[in-house]
Amino acid sequence: MNMNFYMPAKVISGKDCISQNKALFKLGKSCMIVTGSSSAIKSGALDDVIDALCENGIEYIVYDKIRENPLLSTCYDGGVIAREFGCDFVVGIGGGSPMDAAKAIAGFIANPDIEPDEIFNIPALSPSVPIILVPTTSGTGSEGNPYSILSLDGKDKKQTFNSPYSYAKYAFLDYKYTLSLSRNYSLSTALDAFCHCIESYMSPKSTDISRMFALYGAKNIWNCFDGLDRGEITEDMREALMYASFAGGVAINTTGTGFPHPMGYNLTFYADLPHGRACAVFIGKYVEYQMKSEEGRKLLCGFAEALGTTPEIIGEYLPRLAEFTAEIDDETVTMFCEKVKNARNFVNAPYKVSYDEMIKIYKDLFIK
Amino acid sequence: MNMNFYMPAKVISGKDCISQNKALFKLGKSCMIVTGSSSAIKSGALDDVIDALCENGIEYIVYDKIRENPLLSTCYDGGVIAREFGCDFVVGIGGGSPMDAAKAIAGFIANPDIEPDEIFNIPALSPSVPIILVPTTSGTGSEGNPYSILSLDGKDKKQTFNSPYSYAKYAFLDYKYTLSLSRNYSLSTALDAFCHCIESYMSPKSTDISRMFALYGAKNIWNCFDGLDRGEITEDMREALMYASFAGGVAINTTGTGFPHPMGYNLTFYADLPHGRACAVFIGKYVEYQMKSEEGRKLLCGFAEALGTTPEIIGEYLPRLAEFTAEIDDETVTMFCEKVKNARNFVNAPYKVSYDEMIKIYKDLFIK
Repeated sequence: MNMNFYMPAKVISGKDCISQNKALFKLGKSCMIVTGSSSAIKSGALDDVIDALCENGIEYIVYDKIRENPLLSTCYDGGVIAREFGCDFVVGIGGGSPMDAAKAIAGFIANPDIEPDEIFNIPALSPSVPIILVPTTSGTGSEGNPYSILSLDGKDKKQTFNSPYSYAKYAFLDYKYTLSLSRNYSLSTALDAFCHCIESYMSPKSTDISRMFALYGAKNIWNCFDGLDRGEITEDMREALMYASFAGGVAINTTGTGFPHPMGYNLTFYADLPHGRACAVFIGKYVEYQMKSEEGRKLLCGFAEALGTTPEIIGEYLPRLAEFTAEIDDETVTMFCEKVKNARNFVNAPYKVSYDEMIKIYKDLFIK
Repeated sequence: MNMNFYMPAKVISGKDCISQNKALFKLGKSCMIVTGSSSAIKSGALDDVIDALCENGIEYIVYDKIRENPLLSTCYDGGVIAREFGCDFVVGIGGGSPMDAAKAIAGFIANPDIEPDEIFNIPALSPSVPIILVPTTSGTGSEGNPYSILSLDGKDKKQTFNSPYSYAKYAFLDYKYTLSLSRNYSLSTALDAFCHCIESYMSPKSTDISRMFALYGAKNIWNCFDGLDRGEITEDMREALMYASFAGGVAINTTGTGFPHPMGYNLTFYADLPHGRACAVFIGKYVEYQMKSEEGRKLLCGFAEALGTTPEIIGEYLPRLAEFTAEIDDETVTMFCEKVKNARNFVNAPYKVSYDEMIKIYKDLFIK
């Protein structure tokens, strides 16, 4: 039993929550809006944010250079531009990439003298400038934690930057920004958020509170899967999914994730499979292995019962929703396992999967 | 559906959590420890805190002048002394009174030029100095919210001070400080915390997250009531009760409380009935009235189902645990109702109790 918890972001939720709370944007004189190329515009979130900034007489620039797997250098450049413009706070709008980039840019603004890769030492440096996050997808949960996953330029490698100053001051959860997302995109992001919830729930680092958030998120998403699968996604489901994604982000802030995440990275990297589906591919095996330990079985049964189902059905259903088949040869399996074998995620569950078991999991799934 | 939430305190929990996290006390050079006359010493919490301060080379003074229903003037005087001593942060140890006083003293330290009663304007003033809270009872939940209830000197009146700066920076939840509490005291504080949870859960201001915390707390406490009633209180129960109390404090931070609170104040004030028992006296009537509205019935049935019981059993059991009978005359009933009729708690539930119904509730309970 454990009640450890930290969640300093103020969460404002509901349709039109930005236009109903414009005064909260008065965090400084000048703001950098960090976003990708199109989703902030298409979703309507950019308009709402600009409207709130203008109403408060705040100058702004839009930095829309963020792409998937944001580069450290792009964030560093954003910090330089923001300082030139005198920005004293940041609004990140989008999926995980712009929100993660916003956290890094806020760190660069507050620490003008550091080299790009010194951002990873930021816990020892100055605080960040204030950050507002506005998710336009329901998957990453980045608005619920301080993590920022950045790609290192010229290296086949990502590194996570994480500082106690990198929580959002405000997170605005308005599901209307997700209304136009496609069936496929919505399903994949929902799978990502569900994986956050189940992997967090199983972690030995769980606390009573992280499990509460994980179960809340998992229940919301579980009830939406059939509709998502059929592409019949109501407004109520959009709302439930957005809150679930946030809850998953809060849960993994305490616990981190389990092995479906690193094992899935290879499928994203080498087969371009969207992240959520790539994780979900491994949930069947995740359930199978966790059921081998007494603690794992106990936890999974409790988790499934709260969802009104069984571990076996979860393990069967998620990979089916992921809709991915491939044939991979022995050498590729070895390469995959070498890539991720040092990830701490493998021991972040009651049953610790060994290297030989990693090999076996990939082979079972992808060698016929 | 609503996900609004704010909880900036970092919560550290478990046995010996202070001695295992001494470095977190390094919040300044000099500290005022705010406490009552004895519980901080008896519980061992004062020793643990002093040990952590000394390990970090932090000077401290102990201000142990806080009594039940802390006076505004006592808090103001504490602020003056703390400034003279150069204190730049505050540790509150105890039940609700010392924790509430610590919040006020922290406000006075940061705002040297204000008059005592200007503390109630503090949201418009400077921030507070950092606050650490260490509960030694499991009832108030003050460590989970920014509320500070102060008694106005020379007036038969309390006023609540509440600022966005008055959250604890750290809350240390160590149930070992509650091990020596008597059966009666433990039961009364548990009743208080349970009332927070049920009254919060029923509030129209609830969010998904506040209900999650309210249910978590209510379940923990419900499972302990039989043991509390028999005076057989295990360590596991002590731990569950401490986390439940915190959860209740977080829940009411979003919602506030319902009518058992103001109606109970009269019993505390005029019959010296401990606060938790005084609230629990009214839970039977609270359930009865809420069941009159469709929304109230729906919510109560869901709440009770999550606890594995029924609304009727809750409504029957809580007043029985409160163990209070009295005969009160018509005039006293009128005086009681006049005292509390303007409290907003009466409309903070699906069924809004009228003035005539307040009268009827007191009469039903106390005029034979």
